[in-house]
Amino acid sequence: MANAQRSVGVGLIGFGTIGTGVVKLLSRRSGAISQKLGCSLRLVRIADLDIRTDRGVRVDRRLLTTDAREIITDPSVDIVVELIGGYEPAREFVLAALRAGKSVVTANKALLAVHGAEIFAEAERRGVDLGFEASVGGGIPIIRTLKEGLAGDRTGAVYGIVNGTSNYVLSTMTREGHEFGDVLREAQREGLAEADPTYDVDGTDAAHKLTLLATLAFGVQAKFKDVYTEGIQQIEPMDIDFARELGYTIKLLAIAKDHGDAIETRVHPTMIPQRHVLADVGGAYNAIYVQGDALGSSMYFGLGAGMMPTATAVVGDIMEIARGRERGVSGRIPPLGHPWQKLRRGVATRPMGDITSEFYLRFMAIDRPGVLARIAGLLGNERISIASVIQKERKRDTTVPLVILTHVSLERSLRKALTGIARLRVVRGRPVILRIEEHLA
Amino acid sequence: MANAQRSVGVGLIGFGTIGTGVVKLLSRRSGAISQKLGCSLRLVRIADLDIRTDRGVRVDRRLLTTDAREIITDPSVDIVVELIGGYEPAREFVLAALRAGKSVVTANKALLAVHGAEIFAEAERRGVDLGFEASVGGGIPIIRTLKEGLAGDRTGAVYGIVNGTSNYVLSTMTREGHEFGDVLREAQREGLAEADPTYDVDGTDAAHKLTLLATLAFGVQAKFKDVYTEGIQQIEPMDIDFARELGYTIKLLAIAKDHGDAIETRVHPTMIPQRHVLADVGGAYNAIYVQGDALGSSMYFGLGAGMMPTATAVVGDIMEIARGRERGVSGRIPPLGHPWQKLRRGVATRPMGDITSEFYLRFMAIDRPGVLARIAGLLGNERISIASVIQKERKRDTTVPLVILTHVSLERSLRKALTGIARLRVVRGRPVILRIEEHLA
Repeated sequence: MANAQRSVGVGLIGFGTIGTGVVKLLSRRSGAISQKLGCSLRLVRIADLDIRTDRGVRVDRRLLTTDAREIITDPSVDIVVELIGGYEPAREFVLAALRAGKSVVTANKALLAVHGAEIFAEAERRGVDLGFEASVGGGIPIIRTLKEGLAGDRTGAVYGIVNGTSNYVLSTMTREGHEFGDVLREAQREGLAEADPTYDVDGTDAAHKLTLLATLAFGVQAKFKDVYTEGIQQIEPMDIDFARELGYTIKLLAIAKDHGDAIETRVHPTMIPQRHVLADVGGAYNAIYVQGDALGSSMYFGLGAGMMPTATAVVGDIMEIARGRERGVSGRIPPLGHPWQKLRRGVATRPMGDITSEFYLRFMAIDRPGVLARIAGLLGNERISIASVIQKERKRDTTVPLVILTHVSLERSLRKALTGIARLRVVRGRPVILRIEEHLA
Repeated sequence: MANAQRSVGVGLIGFGTIGTGVVKLLSRRSGAISQKLGCSLRLVRIADLDIRTDRGVRVDRRLLTTDAREIITDPSVDIVVELIGGYEPAREFVLAALRAGKSVVTANKALLAVHGAEIFAEAERRGVDLGFEASVGGGIPIIRTLKEGLAGDRTGAVYGIVNGTSNYVLSTMTREGHEFGDVLREAQREGLAEADPTYDVDGTDAAHKLTLLATLAFGVQAKFKDVYTEGIQQIEPMDIDFARELGYTIKLLAIAKDHGDAIETRVHPTMIPQRHVLADVGGAYNAIYVQGDALGSSMYFGLGAGMMPTATAVVGDIMEIARGRERGVSGRIPPLGHPWQKLRRGVATRPMGDITSEFYLRFMAIDRPGVLARIAGLLGNERISIASVIQKERKRDTTVPLVILTHVSLERSLRKALTGIARLRVVRGRPVILRIEEHLA
């Protein structure tokens, strides 16, 4: 008779797209997973408000419940997987599970970005594990990389393309020259963008992820509310064309820099050199580019969303935790690789006015002699020097785009100059301002 | 009085470039490392045959010894770091350390590729840890990624640019159009290639690394001796030009594919589409591109060699092992993430004759009517069909290059056809044959 194989019990809260992927992967790979772990993973229970819809995957209907509490209180559940997303009741469920001594795996970046302090501290206090690989970069193991692989290095900066929808929209606009709204609607029709894509295109989702990346990379308590966030809605095909002409590609970048006494965290459309590896990250792909003192530049690239890629990250976390449980060990490593209480304190987030950058400015101005001189004068007054200008004359007295690239300038000075420029009668509408990351490499 | 902080003892065997980097990083980052681990790493002893040379890093001279055995037998050493490279005495030291109950960290791909069976099994038998992140891709955490991050997925193929020297030489040849020998000599002068670069340019180093990647990715006991290996010495500027004209870039790729009942492991110069992300990996950079059933494509990119990048990987491993030691746990996870005894057996390595590929063939042929017809006829006899031809006429009766791209063909059939073609009097010298990976994405 064969030995009864030990098993680790897994309970799933949320049976949507990712949840279905997790169930599929656990079932398809059960043999290989047991071989690797020396124990099996047993799906004990699945909770969802909707347990009627056919998810296209076979599960014993007796596993299904509409009450998440049944999972949290079930003694045969060792690991609770939270995949419902959003703040509440996810927060309540995760905290309850940790307090019940369960380890937790979650893909919920919004929850951890906003309520991380409470959740990370609770996991450590209870000595259980909290896996969140799936929360950033889908299946790309960037959390593990920052937490363990690069643990010995000092990371100075992180640049992420971490929202697949906005990257898809920008890549398509760049390739096809169409308007933002048209490309987004097309993406929605093809199922590549959510019905409500607000948080994807306005930068919120990327800002959630950046909060986690900065916390891990710099060992600080980065705050979501301090992340400067700007979306891609204002980008016009014209700006993409000018960027190309100037040797750049526009990407929605999540940028974090560690200045020692302060950090910088910002999400905005950014012009990067066309030759940079991040410029080639197209479609729904994600990539996280990391600059380390010892390691230099490294990049992690893959599908940042979707059922099966994200499920890969969830299952990787479940397996890591199961290895510990199986040997009677949990909380081997704190969730952030760094005890929550020992993260660097008193490290402020630099206000946007204090950051420096090169800028792309695109004004719509009346095509009349002297316009450039007046704008250049107002920039000069704020000590902003001009690197190059594109002024494509069309026809006198109509509105034409005037593009100016600046040398490295203080954002506050630029904003002041723009206030003055906005008052010029020859300038119409709002200018488009893009930050340039020239020295990424 | 402050609590005496616990410490984990580290002994270093090999005080060359990487060893010096490890000492530097442990010293520079000691505060941050202790914060993360909750214990400190104490460098207890360093062995090297040469303990006189100034390594440019401060160490207490009393730590130095010329006898590696002193490290292995020292009870205050918990983790032995082997950085001497090569087969012996590295093998002897590593096995002795494991048998003494020490955990081991090594950067030695040659050792693990050839003697892995013995070493991995010994580590598991002793229940200690064996970290080898630094053995592939320098500081890129690809070992950790395959072992844990992607553990739940089935990986179908791995494509690696894993030798920085050959990638630097090929990238420079591509950019500047110079000959292989000239570029290599220049790289040596600049310290970018070893005094003896044989194993870098002939593919041996990449084959060592591929053995480890295939073992980890597929859960098989891949064998170094079964890796088909071809270097970059035969590549001429002319081939790089033709590749460019045809939309390809030439890279020394380490390729592993899992066909279920058999695997493919091969290292050779490969033509890949210019638009593929791997094509942009230039200079001394490394990248590993992984295709998973669930994850899809992902890529890991960074500096694959050098003092500090490689030291980052070594220190990451030391930290991971120290976390376990500190909690009285070792051998949390087997070195390959999969118990050595449970790796898939009976999975043969497919002989090169059995692989299929598209091919680039470049012949030097007398420029005379009918030559193409004769070559095409011999290819056709072996059922090899031609995708395109470049025949640049220069002058009758001189030798000109004739380039043929084939559709997917069996390597054995191609070899047969080439034997026939070699007999043609109009064909001079040896043809250049490159395999094409058209469908990487």
